[in-house]
Amino acid sequence: MESAIPAHLTVPRTRPSRVPDDFRPAYPSFVARTPESTAQVVMAYLGAQLPAGTEPGGVPAALAQALAGPDGPAHHDRATQVVRDGPVDVVTVAYWDDPAAFDRWFARHREPWLTDRDGGGRWVEVIRPRVEEFETIFGARSRPEGVAVLAEGFSDQVREHAYWGGMRDRIPASQTGPLHDPGGLDVERDGDRVRVRPRGSVCLIRSGQDWTDTAPDEREIYLEDIEPNLRAGMDFLESDGLGIGCFANRYLTVLDADGRTTERSYGLSWWRTLAELERWSESHPTHLAIFSSFGRMVAARGSTKLRLYHEVSVVGPDEQWFEYAGCHERTGLLAALGS
Amino acid sequence: MESAIPAHLTVPRTRPSRVPDDFRPAYPSFVARTPESTAQVVMAYLGAQLPAGTEPGGVPAALAQALAGPDGPAHHDRATQVVRDGPVDVVTVAYWDDPAAFDRWFARHREPWLTDRDGGGRWVEVIRPRVEEFETIFGARSRPEGVAVLAEGFSDQVREHAYWGGMRDRIPASQTGPLHDPGGLDVERDGDRVRVRPRGSVCLIRSGQDWTDTAPDEREIYLEDIEPNLRAGMDFLESDGLGIGCFANRYLTVLDADGRTTERSYGLSWWRTLAELERWSESHPTHLAIFSSFGRMVAARGSTKLRLYHEVSVVGPDEQWFEYAGCHERTGLLAALGS
Repeated sequence: MESAIPAHLTVPRTRPSRVPDDFRPAYPSFVARTPESTAQVVMAYLGAQLPAGTEPGGVPAALAQALAGPDGPAHHDRATQVVRDGPVDVVTVAYWDDPAAFDRWFARHREPWLTDRDGGGRWVEVIRPRVEEFETIFGARSRPEGVAVLAEGFSDQVREHAYWGGMRDRIPASQTGPLHDPGGLDVERDGDRVRVRPRGSVCLIRSGQDWTDTAPDEREIYLEDIEPNLRAGMDFLESDGLGIGCFANRYLTVLDADGRTTERSYGLSWWRTLAELERWSESHPTHLAIFSSFGRMVAARGSTKLRLYHEVSVVGPDEQWFEYAGCHERTGLLAALGS
Repeated sequence: MESAIPAHLTVPRTRPSRVPDDFRPAYPSFVARTPESTAQVVMAYLGAQLPAGTEPGGVPAALAQALAGPDGPAHHDRATQVVRDGPVDVVTVAYWDDPAAFDRWFARHREPWLTDRDGGGRWVEVIRPRVEEFETIFGARSRPEGVAVLAEGFSDQVREHAYWGGMRDRIPASQTGPLHDPGGLDVERDGDRVRVRPRGSVCLIRSGQDWTDTAPDEREIYLEDIEPNLRAGMDFLESDGLGIGCFANRYLTVLDADGRTTERSYGLSWWRTLAELERWSESHPTHLAIFSSFGRMVAARGSTKLRLYHEVSVVGPDEQWFEYAGCHERTGLLAALGS
């Protein structure tokens, strides 16, 4: 058992953890450990909006070249959001552990990505959290996803999980700060190009599930008990989230290299504040139902082959970049304009 | 909107509230406001264990005299626990706002209460929290129950509720302390008299519901959706609570003056620590189900005639008295011996 906050990021707390030192979580979880040399990472969501009915296919050639080229990301993956009768959104998320390399890459590839768009929409949503500003949690010490692919490995079992508030307690900056700087959104329009500039911090959560390895009975529980609640929660956030502080939400299915859907999915949510994300996850019936069903499944079986993970970041205005080109008005943070 | 902590008990926080100052609860709740002159209260649970099948009846004459006599409590109420084929437990809980008056009363009435027991068992469970050491929460600003009857009235809507952690944040001592001093139980036996002495703090929750005023549809939701979950949670704590820090639990129905059951009930739980009570209430499926059903009912109707309240105290070893006479071995803290 160890702290989710690594030794080199531990400072004397002026804000105590929500649980006492003698707290023991009901089940094990693990966090990704980035090398001590990593000071800041970059998470870049590169979105493409394709006409309804389009197959996502493989990575477009220009993007594939950019990702594999100089200063490219350490890791990327792709996912799609299937909206009935809507456009097909394909999101490539790329991770860097060197912000300077990202800056060079972005300077070269941002404009082509947003301009040469094959008649569809394109966007970029980028944050660059310092290592003090994000946390991860995984149910198993293998098959890292998302920012965890940049890590050098996983921790031992950590103490700060399996209670409401663990998310905050795992973020190193929460040792001394409230992670609370809410603000509205400013907008700059130039033709079909739109920059959105939050005036305060934003909070990003990527929260994923992988049911590839589940045995038939677990798969049934996931697909028939957990997933419908998950979908209802995602639907709620997408359509009605703004009133409770969720700027935008997507529920994505991960694609393989050929653009086929896999048995992995993730929710991607932009929040005005971590506090509002906390309140939703702790109190919304759909999320409580997910939490309860998962807890019951683990309690009944002792363990599970259903893999869950998330990563949560809170970053200030100078660590964000939101830009949309030719996208419909409900895309990403565009849906939150006027808030 | 105001703080649950009254101005005269507010001190600079060294431990921040769990929610930011801009948090707005989803529905209103209120706390009891004791007069500034009240420094400490006493909560005395006087239990009687009657043979199976006995009707509780009215207050026994000797107790009625004691309660109405010199130095008697400011308020008391009675409740019973109906255990199938078990003894009938009748609990009179009395509240004082003057510990010195209680001391004189207890010196006079403790021995008779525990000795002249009509062939049944008797017990006393007493704590004397300072006003910094307890909190209350009510869904409506009327009909106080429990310690709130000692108050001079209710607050306006308070900020610290409708999130996990509000309970702690409402206790004034949480502004600067962890409220965490877990310890085991020592025991002293003398014939059929047993004193139990916790070595650390204990946490007491009285958590009640009153469905007297509910309209037929609300009553149905309460009785068919909420109450079965409540009962399952109470059953779990009574039979299996010790492993998660619950020393003892009772689920009681309030009695009227003639000893007839009313449409009011409460759960009475002794916990090793507030932290363990927090973990249970936040994560146990039965309690989450209660929380979700209640939230859905309030959200759907805008308000409810179902009245909910609770009071929670955390007190050190010198503010406790647990004594059992001729009781069965699962009574109160006796069930937790050896822990």
